[in-house]
Amino acid sequence: MNIWATEDQTDNLRISFRVRSVLDQGESEFQKCDIYDTFEFGRLMMLDNMVMLTERDEFFYHEMIAHVPLNVHPNPKRVLVIGGGDGGTIREIARHSFVEDITIVEIDKMVVDMSKKHLPFVACGFDDPRVKLHIADGISFIQEQKNAWDVILIDSTDPVSFAEGLFHTDFYASVRDALTDNGILVAQTEYPFIQEHLVRDIFSSLDQVFPISRMYLAPVPTYPTGLWSFGLASKGPDPIQDFKPERAEALSGQLKYYTADIHKSAFAIPPFIQELLP
Amino acid sequence: MNIWATEDQTDNLRISFRVRSVLDQGESEFQKCDIYDTFEFGRLMMLDNMVMLTERDEFFYHEMIAHVPLNVHPNPKRVLVIGGGDGGTIREIARHSFVEDITIVEIDKMVVDMSKKHLPFVACGFDDPRVKLHIADGISFIQEQKNAWDVILIDSTDPVSFAEGLFHTDFYASVRDALTDNGILVAQTEYPFIQEHLVRDIFSSLDQVFPISRMYLAPVPTYPTGLWSFGLASKGPDPIQDFKPERAEALSGQLKYYTADIHKSAFAIPPFIQELLP
Repeated sequence: MNIWATEDQTDNLRISFRVRSVLDQGESEFQKCDIYDTFEFGRLMMLDNMVMLTERDEFFYHEMIAHVPLNVHPNPKRVLVIGGGDGGTIREIARHSFVEDITIVEIDKMVVDMSKKHLPFVACGFDDPRVKLHIADGISFIQEQKNAWDVILIDSTDPVSFAEGLFHTDFYASVRDALTDNGILVAQTEYPFIQEHLVRDIFSSLDQVFPISRMYLAPVPTYPTGLWSFGLASKGPDPIQDFKPERAEALSGQLKYYTADIHKSAFAIPPFIQELLP
Repeated sequence: MNIWATEDQTDNLRISFRVRSVLDQGESEFQKCDIYDTFEFGRLMMLDNMVMLTERDEFFYHEMIAHVPLNVHPNPKRVLVIGGGDGGTIREIARHSFVEDITIVEIDKMVVDMSKKHLPFVACGFDDPRVKLHIADGISFIQEQKNAWDVILIDSTDPVSFAEGLFHTDFYASVRDALTDNGILVAQTEYPFIQEHLVRDIFSSLDQVFPISRMYLAPVPTYPTGLWSFGLASKGPDPIQDFKPERAEALSGQLKYYTADIHKSAFAIPPFIQELLP
């Protein structure tokens, strides 16, 4: 058998994974989900034919979306995740004993079910007793929340279809209002190499809504171009000046990518990206 | 027309570029060379079906192989490049007015000819009057050199076929002897995600031969996994302590990736790679 799972990363660029077996296929009202076992990257979840995560390289993304804000906020007790139904992000949040409430709002129950069935290495995030799962639309959910969350993470799919609203200024303003006084938002903000217009728009919006907004970078080998960006927007804390390296050191031995040095280095933005930012 | 150029990055992972036109094809005694015009990445050179460079993303690699050592060595006047026949690395070296001699030893004249014909954005490196080109085997060339070069860059293809010897301990020892007292070697050292054994062997060899050896990282979207490594090995200068940020600042406005912040950040090595290093 010689079968390949392919993502059209753009109209003109493809990545293909040789597949050992097709484990499952599903379809919800929102999207199509395929689970493969691949030779190079272990288990692979695709949503609408786009790579969401692989067993072998999911740690880059999940460590970086979670630990950067949690090691900057002075006292993050209540953490909200929008999206992230696979569980990888909450697995990382749960490493911090000072977090008391981990609430996840995922629009598509199928993603949670598929992950629990086939991707235990991320779905284990749901095992923590502090985790509360809501199957709901994050955009509606956030509008009911005022001054309620210390850290909010937007762990979304790409800005198409039902996820598009998660990248708009109005939504970021709702997130700001849902955050407590020193609150921090981190959103996945796509790939700055090729997706220049999108990245420019997102950071322009964050800059309008928050007093502090900064980009940080991480490699994600199976995402387009391998170079991923995150937006950190804050009502107070600065991601470098208020960084607490002792919290990073407390995670030592548990993580594969994130360290105190990586935290600081991730905010070094090269000129070709700087020119996209406000 | 819907044609795609594909690299089998491993047996189980492929990257494919949609091709606007096939510009040239050649074959030397060493390798096969194809030049394509692609929709996403502009002009693309493949050697033996492996991506050597693209017009759109070559700057990551060429800036990082050249400027890191040149901004660390106290007074780099004589610089030798082994490989790099496309010209991109010497283009970057030539930005430094304090460099007096730029010698390049490329084994395959076809690479130089193809680049001069089709890839003017890198081949422009050959226009600098300080550049001397030798068509010769780098391994033999280096054995005749003693205490002769301030900086030596190994800008090679992957360690297969005629390039394999460029990754061996014996060769690194010849490079050490060819360097002056404060001399610095930088070699491209492949991708640490997936190529673990190779990276472990290379850095073990560098550690045996040089008093200082350090890895640094850069994204290269069209190279396997998008995360590339370089080995800096030094007879004296330390890449962080002896870094001269004023030289990085002097390049400001000319470069797309490298800055003083990027220089320092590139040496932040995540735990999953640290465990491969001596």
